[in-house]
Amino acid sequence: MIDLYPPMNRESGVNDVTIKIMYCGMCHTDLHYAKNDWGITMYPVVPGHEITGIITKVGENVKKFKVGDRVGVGCLAASCLECEFCKNSQENYCDQIQFTYNGIFWDGSITFGGYSTMLVADHRYVVHVPENLPMDAAAPLLCAGITVFSPLKDHNLLEASASPKKVGIVGLGGLGHIAVKFAKAFGHHVTVISTSPSKEREAKHRLGADDFIVSTDATQMQAKKRSLDFILDTVSAHHCLGPMLELLKVNGTLVLVGAPDKPIDLPSFPLIFGKRAVKGSMTGGIRETQEMMDVCGKHGITCEIELVTPDKINQSLQRLAKNDVRYRFVIDIASSHMSSRL
Amino acid sequence: MIDLYPPMNRESGVNDVTIKIMYCGMCHTDLHYAKNDWGITMYPVVPGHEITGIITKVGENVKKFKVGDRVGVGCLAASCLECEFCKNSQENYCDQIQFTYNGIFWDGSITFGGYSTMLVADHRYVVHVPENLPMDAAAPLLCAGITVFSPLKDHNLLEASASPKKVGIVGLGGLGHIAVKFAKAFGHHVTVISTSPSKEREAKHRLGADDFIVSTDATQMQAKKRSLDFILDTVSAHHCLGPMLELLKVNGTLVLVGAPDKPIDLPSFPLIFGKRAVKGSMTGGIRETQEMMDVCGKHGITCEIELVTPDKINQSLQRLAKNDVRYRFVIDIASSHMSSRL
Repeated sequence: MIDLYPPMNRESGVNDVTIKIMYCGMCHTDLHYAKNDWGITMYPVVPGHEITGIITKVGENVKKFKVGDRVGVGCLAASCLECEFCKNSQENYCDQIQFTYNGIFWDGSITFGGYSTMLVADHRYVVHVPENLPMDAAAPLLCAGITVFSPLKDHNLLEASASPKKVGIVGLGGLGHIAVKFAKAFGHHVTVISTSPSKEREAKHRLGADDFIVSTDATQMQAKKRSLDFILDTVSAHHCLGPMLELLKVNGTLVLVGAPDKPIDLPSFPLIFGKRAVKGSMTGGIRETQEMMDVCGKHGITCEIELVTPDKINQSLQRLAKNDVRYRFVIDIASSHMSSRL
Repeated sequence: MIDLYPPMNRESGVNDVTIKIMYCGMCHTDLHYAKNDWGITMYPVVPGHEITGIITKVGENVKKFKVGDRVGVGCLAASCLECEFCKNSQENYCDQIQFTYNGIFWDGSITFGGYSTMLVADHRYVVHVPENLPMDAAAPLLCAGITVFSPLKDHNLLEASASPKKVGIVGLGGLGHIAVKFAKAFGHHVTVISTSPSKEREAKHRLGADDFIVSTDATQMQAKKRSLDFILDTVSAHHCLGPMLELLKVNGTLVLVGAPDKPIDLPSFPLIFGKRAVKGSMTGGIRETQEMMDVCGKHGITCEIELVTPDKINQSLQRLAKNDVRYRFVIDIASSHMSSRL
């Protein structure tokens, strides 16, 4: 059982803000850490890196935030602040990066995440949540949202003036469904590629996708060879990339944002014969995360969520392990503030 | 035993040139086809797609060549001539592409390669060999040369004004050693990455490489993490890409030009944590092949070869299978012209 009153956060320092957590999304990564799938969990662990809340205290060096601000915290807790990446707000690629939970902060303390009622965070890793976004459905933007926003932006697909491209999204889960929303908001032709034929209706009617391919149907896959400019692959289960690569035009790129724990099978022929690329991408920098939040505010983009009370966390993790969620669980931490007030 | 007087080429047509073959390089692909490793060989097969020779006859539509011209033929025999790739001289990515041997020409005939005394080739897939290049050491440029030239050029490493980059070359064989020469000719810092410590001296002293990493030495690999801008991986034997990817800086690209017959192991973490890319590349277009030949002429770049007489082909194929060659076998077809004259 995960305890909502976990090991204490560190004391709030001069560069920190203290946040009353309202909501926290449940990312698949939380499950990997809770179960120590990657062998790197430092127990006790408090998962959660899709956090929205209200600032209750600011350190003396903090100018960008004030008490009462609606804010969000994603995956990053600390980085070196001195390397080329940190200086360019690509903190996510700093090689000293520390995460929001199961990380080691500068003072040596272990970081604890958002399955909790409060968080102390360095203000340099905190972003504003636009006023028009609901705090619950905005929470998963802090990881799922920025994880798909960053590679789409990196490939010039989120410019206001972007010419319409044929974009494929592999997997229609927490990440995939937001990717569809971003790609559609910028006018692209979106094809969802999924193992589940049952998702076609929802992909098209609820999320606005233009096309749908069942990845296990060889005939459908064959018919769409060399048709897509770009693919975002959000699946973290083991899968072979060959058939996906064949969907790309010559010189097309597939970006992986899921992280299968075993090496992926990469057949060389579809890569070589089509001069195609497989690229990785991991979350985003802080400036980019703020930009994403502002884009979401402008376009009214939020996640489709199932709100659960804290007493349902373990049950929800079990459902998450079976991908039984449309499309993201968000813990209603705020309700626990309520109940603690009663 | 491979027969030097094989099934006849087609009759020379209006768009064809007839070439008296002087030399033909022995590419690893020849071995795959001879042994039907990929299950697609149409016997009898005449391997060879690194061909230099002299034109003996031109068809009436041929303006670019005349009898007596020194020419080269690489991997391509035909393509659709109508698609976006053909129109832009990227015939190598046309999806109707046919190869110099084991291909099917427009008239339905099977194509036969350069382990032969003559070749009939469509002039649109033939290039000039600069006068200052020896015909024997130039032959492997037609496949090995263009295969490494194209991705280096594609990543802006072969511009006269290119700023010096840190370039890694994996594998020091037929392809790798020419890649070192190209990268050095354009002023880059070149690191050779090889399983064979014995190649260090040759890499540095004979080919001019700046650095050498033994890929099986974890300490050496670790010490060079995040140090390279670009890697060209020329190894077609099965290998894991993870340790190679770790050598790349953030946002770096590894291009695969070897074609392992089984899927490659691609671990997601080094890809994702470094926003790195794995890309494929297959030979080059005809305009680019001519450009490469001209660059080789200008910089005096040729292959390091072992010249063998036709009666040594089978023995050389056996040595090739064991990578026992420095760095490319070239068949001295010209000597057979001599003996047939005697």
